[in-house]
Formats: sequence, C-alpha cells, structure tokens
Amino acid sequence: MSAQLEWVAVDWGTSNLRAWGIDADGSVAFSRSSPEGMGRLSREQYPEVLTSLLAGTGSDGVSEVLICGMAGARQGWMEAPYLDAPADLATLASGAVAPDMPGGLEPRILPGVCLREVGAEDVMRGEETQLLGLASLSPGFSGLVVMPGTHSKWAQVDGTTLRRFSSAMTGELFEVIRAHSVLRHSLDGELEGEDRDTGFDAGLDQGLSRPGRLTAALFKVRAGALLTARSPAWCAGFLSGLLIGAEIGGQKDWIQAGREIPLIGGVSLCGLYQIAFGKLGVASRVVDATDATLAGLKAARQG
Amino acid sequence: MSAQLEWVAVDWGTSNLRAWGIDADGSVAFSRSSPEGMGRLSREQYPEVLTSLLAGTGSDGVSEVLICGMAGARQGWMEAPYLDAPADLATLASGAVAPDMPGGLEPRILPGVCLREVGAEDVMRGEETQLLGLASLSPGFSGLVVMPGTHSKWAQVDGTTLRRFSSAMTGELFEVIRAHSVLRHSLDGELEGEDRDTGFDAGLDQGLSRPGRLTAALFKVRAGALLTARSPAWCAGFLSGLLIGAEIGGQKDWIQAGREIPLIGGVSLCGLYQIAFGKLGVASRVVDATDATLAGLKAARQG
Repeated sequence: MSAQLEWVAVDWGTSNLRAWGIDADGSVAFSRSSPEGMGRLSREQYPEVLTSLLAGTGSDGVSEVLICGMAGARQGWMEAPYLDAPADLATLASGAVAPDMPGGLEPRILPGVCLREVGAEDVMRGEETQLLGLASLSPGFSGLVVMPGTHSKWAQVDGTTLRRFSSAMTGELFEVIRAHSVLRHSLDGELEGEDRDTGFDAGLDQGLSRPGRLTAALFKVRAGALLTARSPAWCAGFLSGLLIGAEIGGQKDWIQAGREIPLIGGVSLCGLYQIAFGKLGVASRVVDATDATLAGLKAARQG
Repeated sequence: MSAQLEWVAVDWGTSNLRAWGIDADGSVAFSRSSPEGMGRLSREQYPEVLTSLLAGTGSDGVSEVLICGMAGARQGWMEAPYLDAPADLATLASGAVAPDMPGGLEPRILPGVCLREVGAEDVMRGEETQLLGLASLSPGFSGLVVMPGTHSKWAQVDGTTLRRFSSAMTGELFEVIRAHSVLRHSLDGELEGEDRDTGFDAGLDQGLSRPGRLTAALFKVRAGALLTARSPAWCAGFLSGLLIGAEIGGQKDWIQAGREIPLIGGVSLCGLYQIAFGKLGVASRVVDATDATLAGLKAARQG
C-alpha cells in the first residue's frame, strides 16, 4: 500500500483549480480538477469549493493545504502580497497567507512575485512556483526560462533566485484578435490541417525578423485572405506564428548564446516555441507545466 | 441662388454612409449621413437605403451618383475589383462598376487598390479616393502620407500615383484590447483627464523606441495598474500612445528626412499622431478626412 497521505498541493489559477494529495514519500495519492478558477468565484465561495473538491479523496484526516496561483490575488481568496524581484523563491512559503476556514483544513496561499523597476513593471502568480520547481528538478540551473501561455513569461533565474522577468500578452492577443477583430472573417472555418503549418512558418519568419512591424503584419492576414484566398487554417497558423515570432524576436537580447532554454508549459504550445527558437539556432527543452508546479509546491513546503 | 445641382458624391464605409449634393460650380448643396454602413447591410438593401437617404434633398432630377468605399467590397453592394498598386489614381473611375438600380439614379462605385507584393499584401477601399483628393488639394505633392484610423494606412505617393502602402491595425487593436483583454480591468472608469496625457506620453516613448517589444509592453498596462495604482485614464493614454508609437516606430524607414507628412483623418486622432511625429522631429499637417474624400470624388469624376 501507499505511504500515509500527508498534505494537499493546490494550483488555483484564473480558469482552473487542481489539487493533488501527497503522501509522506512525496508520491501523488490522488488528483482532482475543476473549472472553478479564480475568475468565476467570489471570496466567500473558496472554502466550500475546496471542501467539495476534496470530498471522497480520503483526505479527511489531513489539514495541510498549500496553494499557489491566482487564489492569492487581490480579487482572489485572500491577497498574498507580492515578493519583490530579485527574490529567493526558496523563501516563498514565508510570504504565504492563511485564510480562515471552517472544518479541519488549514490552507496557506503562496505569494506571487512582482518587478517594480520603472518602465519594466511586471507581475506573476503561479509561475514563481513553477520556477522554484524547475530549480528543484534541475538543480544548479541558471539562465533564461520561457513559459509560453496566455501571458507568456520570460524569466532570468539563478538557482532558486528569480532575477527579473517580463510578460508578453501573446496567447491573449491571439484569442482576442481571433474572436473580435476583422481578422475573424479570415479565421472562420476549419483551423487545423497542413495549411496551418505553412501559415505558422510564414508568420514566424515575419515575427522573428521584424517584431516591430507587428501591427502592420497583422493586417496581412486579412489582405492575404482577400487577395490570395488563404484558408482559415493558414490564417490561424500565420497569426499564431506572427505573435510567437514577435514575442521572441522582440526579446532576443534575453537569449544567451549556447544555452539551452527550458520551456515550461503545455506540451503542444511549447512545441511551437521550440520550432521558433530552433529557427534562431537556439536549443530548448520542454518541462511539463504540471511537473514543475508540483515540484515547486513540494519545494516551497520544505523551504 | 445656388448653381444647378449636378451630381451626388457618396462615401459608403463599413460603419457610416455619407452623401453630398454637388452643384455645377463644385459647391456642396446638401449633405446627409446615416449609420447604414456596409457592415449592417445585405446586398439587396443598398438601392433602398440610398433612395431614402436622398429623399427630400431636391435631387430628384439628378441621376449621377459616384460612390467610394466599402460598398465596392466583395461583401458590399457590388464588387469593384481592386486596381493594382502602383496605380494612377487619376484613372480610378475607369475601374468603377455600375450596379442596377430602379428609379432614375445611376450609381457608379469606385474600386479600391491592392498591393500583391508577396509578404506585403495589402488592400484599401476609400483611402485611395482621399489620396486622389490630396493630389488635387496639394498639386505636385510627393512623399509619405499617413492616414490614422481603425486600420491606419501609410502610403507612398507621387502626384496621383500610389506607389505602395501598408496598413496597421492600430485603432482596431486599441478597441479589442480595451474591450476584451485582461487590460479592460485597468481601463474600467473615467478615461479622460490630465492623467491620460501623461500615460499617452509614456506609452508613446515606449512604442517609438521599442516597437518590437509591443506584446510585452502591453502587459505593463496591467502591471502598472496593479503595482502603482495607475488610473484608468493613465492606462487608456498609455495603451493609445504605445500602439501609435509602435505603428510609427516600426515603420520609421518610410519617413523621409525634412519632408512634412500630410495626415488624413479625424482632427483629434491626427493630433495624437502629430505629437508622435513631433517626438521624432518630423513635421506633419492635418488634412481633414471629409475634405480629402470630397476632393477625391470630384477628381475621380473628372478623371
């Protein structure tokens, strides 16, 4: 049989909530997920949502719950004030807050990290835990880490120290442009298929080589659809490649020659970033986001 | 009394429809406008909408109607195929199409212009008529013309010849980001006031100097609001300045030293572009969009 269940690890993001029961030997005893992310909850709902999520998991005797992510935002369960970068992520737990909760659970919420440098202001909540996880999974790593997503993060780390970071709105721009701009007319239809790869490649080249022309290049999606009957799949690929290319092309000065870049995120999105970095001759490797989050929560608990 | 009413000039855009009765001496006898732009009309509705718009204007005996804009798009009244750039805009009317219409009106719709250069594909409908108008208002002008708007156009002209052009999605990006992205939380409130100018100036500096960092700089709006309690007005100004700055900063190579740039568009938006070009030491002057459209329709009719 498995070791004794010891604590519960929770990743409470904007759109999703995930929990893992962790045994004394560090193995995962159970996992649960729900769409009840911060974005749809009022403050009072958190205790009940957490209780329901853990019902029937055999965690009745367990009190310790360690949470990372947007539950600690101002509009979340309880605000966990940001640590200031540069920050030693090994001390994350010292900045945790402990909301009151009826029943036997004693949750703590880890803080996010902010950068107050004028003109480079930035914030993260959740990614700092993944970065701590990377330091645990790859001891001694230092350099650039890229975390593709709705708000992609580029972080400069040195072991458990987060030196600086920058967010790019790549994923969110893709979504709002696809759904709400005039380009939606060119993106109405089947978005997958071979054409998508060709479009992605063309957009990537444009974004990487001329990131400063992004607002002009975006309109090329529409013009290309009108003039050369580009398919919706080609247009979707071009838009994706253009935005990813512009994110990377505009921040080339963060890249250190000859250093492999860990990409933390979903496997398929990270795959697109690997293609992009590959075009620049830069090696990268994918670190599964869930692995990083779990390793980070474990390390934060021990820190 | 005024001269005899001779023809009707029409600007039929995506969101608006405007018509002017023109006397034999070129003066404007009447003007009408309506929100019945191409975006909300099906093909069959155009004749009736035009008839209604002109009812009671004293134009009963007039048959000639010259139309520019999106009415000539594929999804408009009747497609007027694009002229290819480089194009002599003085010949615009030769590419006009004449939809059938009951009653005494004989409408003609002017074509737009496209650029088929691979990787620089672009289209315009309506702006080509304004550029012909500029050639008429400022005979002999050659150089860069900038047309701020939903899809800003940068055009290289030489008299009535349109050599090349490029569209930037600046205005539309502002709208979809303001309404649909996470930045909406920072833009919820009073958007006017002194703070807006300060934010505009900060965003402009960032966009002009680092257009390639646009997707990262966008997130600074959110981070700035969270960390330094920036007001919604400041954030709106920053977003506007950033997008205008990135449009201009990314296309600096179009600017010719020592040449004044005509800006065709609404007076207040053009004013923002004047501030932006001023920061680069580039002189510009505003040409009212309606003046340019009317001059262009007159010139096209005579061409």
